Amino acid sequence: MNTAATTEDLSKISPQQARELFRDGLVVPTAGISLGYAQANLMIVPKDMAFDVLLFAQRNPKPCPILGVLDAGETSGPLLKGGDIRTDVPQYVVYENGVAIDTPTDITSYWRDDFVTFIIGCSFTFETALLEANLPVAHIAQGVNVPMYRTNVRCESAGKMGGPLVVSMRPMPANLVPDAVRITSRYPAVHGAPVHIGNPEELGITDINSPDFGDPVVIPEGQIPVFWACGVTPQAAVMESKPSIAIGHAPGHMLITDAKDSQYLVP
Amino acid sequence: MNTAATTEDLSKISPQQARELFRDGLVVPTAGISLGYAQANLMIVPKDMAFDVLLFAQRNPKPCPILGVLDAGETSGPLLKGGDIRTDVPQYVVYENGVAIDTPTDITSYWRDDFVTFIIGCSFTFETALLEANLPVAHIAQGVNVPMYRTNVRCESAGKMGGPLVVSMRPMPANLVPDAVRITSRYPAVHGAPVHIGNPEELGITDINSPDFGDPVVIPEGQIPVFWACGVTPQAAVMESKPSIAIGHAPGHMLITDAKDSQYLVP
Repeated sequence: MNTAATTEDLSKISPQQARELFRDGLVVPTAGISLGYAQANLMIVPKDMAFDVLLFAQRNPKPCPILGVLDAGETSGPLLKGGDIRTDVPQYVVYENGVAIDTPTDITSYWRDDFVTFIIGCSFTFETALLEANLPVAHIAQGVNVPMYRTNVRCESAGKMGGPLVVSMRPMPANLVPDAVRITSRYPAVHGAPVHIGNPEELGITDINSPDFGDPVVIPEGQIPVFWACGVTPQAAVMESKPSIAIGHAPGHMLITDAKDSQYLVP
Repeated sequence: MNTAATTEDLSKISPQQARELFRDGLVVPTAGISLGYAQANLMIVPKDMAFDVLLFAQRNPKPCPILGVLDAGETSGPLLKGGDIRTDVPQYVVYENGVAIDTPTDITSYWRDDFVTFIIGCSFTFETALLEANLPVAHIAQGVNVPMYRTNVRCESAGKMGGPLVVSMRPMPANLVPDAVRITSRYPAVHGAPVHIGNPEELGITDINSPDFGDPVVIPEGQIPVFWACGVTPQAAVMESKPSIAIGHAPGHMLITDAKDSQYLVP
């Protein structure tokens, strides 16, 4: 395993190769890896909680766009051919009663036959489109994890699942903000258009340099913070809703799927 | 109640007025009524079947685009403000063990507190857009219910839910088929682009004049049959999957919601 591998080295490897590296122990944020392939958030819950999670996603499609669901006990599927959901994500977070109790790189020891896996779209997908249009993606340029923030906006709840909207932030030059909206709105399956532009205070974000998840990025002079709904939202709901057990990905450490970003493009 | 009311008279009434008419006993196909407001398919199942239905919808978004879900026992919601899902649809179909046993105009006597209601997008929504673009909608012009066909295409199954894709058909002049694709593709939440154009035999449709649901339409000389995924699909799955009880709308007799068609338009 080459722990010195940089994101740049990894941008061209296949999703299968990326999953193998993670299976073998590489732990890095996945932004920029296997560019052109859809990355995904994870939410794994026991079957008796699955309807609430799926309904929560249906009611909050911007933060929780479902790309696929593995049936109870299934560990692989068409989005990760030949893969294993228990080992192929760089890092996981295990929640017991809403509290993160472990951040393993392999969840085989936690696995249960009644676990249902939700694979949820990730804004990393539209970053390829932003980069291709020559828009800046600060956290990739700065080599850090994307900054994510809990907001004061409440999601629509579903059964036991309820919580705040979590957003990711990418600063944009003011003259490119319209392009950022236009481009990302064409990817509704992976969070789509921004939910908020400028004025972080209104979202309850008091310090833009202290994200709740991920890393801070330097906001270049004159650039505007642009906020997109984030797939960490179901994890924030799990923290509030306190199911006996639930497993997510470590923020920024995504499942890299076999689906191409372009599959999620609308006309 | 004015049973002599024609579709034309009803095109301008509000969704609330339409629901009141149906509650009072009017039984008509709803195409063309309250133009500009989204119409919806219905699927009502006991809570223990709800995850399978929601997952079936997630896996088959073209025939089953979910617009809203009423929690177990709920009879109203934001899509039908002040309404009652048990009385406000012109006609229902009640299935026991997959067999249609009743087609009542009111399901109050069947209602149970564990019933979960799925409100599913309907292609009638994009008919407004087709008409505005001067494309013909044959069944409205001919004053009949839209023709719908069971196909030989299998949906992706989910738990106990599995069955054939059901399609609706609208003939189009050959030179307007591209416009029909372009316009309807902008409404992914209500079946979106067609799934098949021309060649009904390939879908297993042996007689275009004998639809499985709804009415036949006259296909004008030289026009091409264009097929869209249809919200009757979950009912076909219920017929195969045989849950103890399930309730749908009578094909073509939809819930008229308070949501505007334009809400479901993508850029």
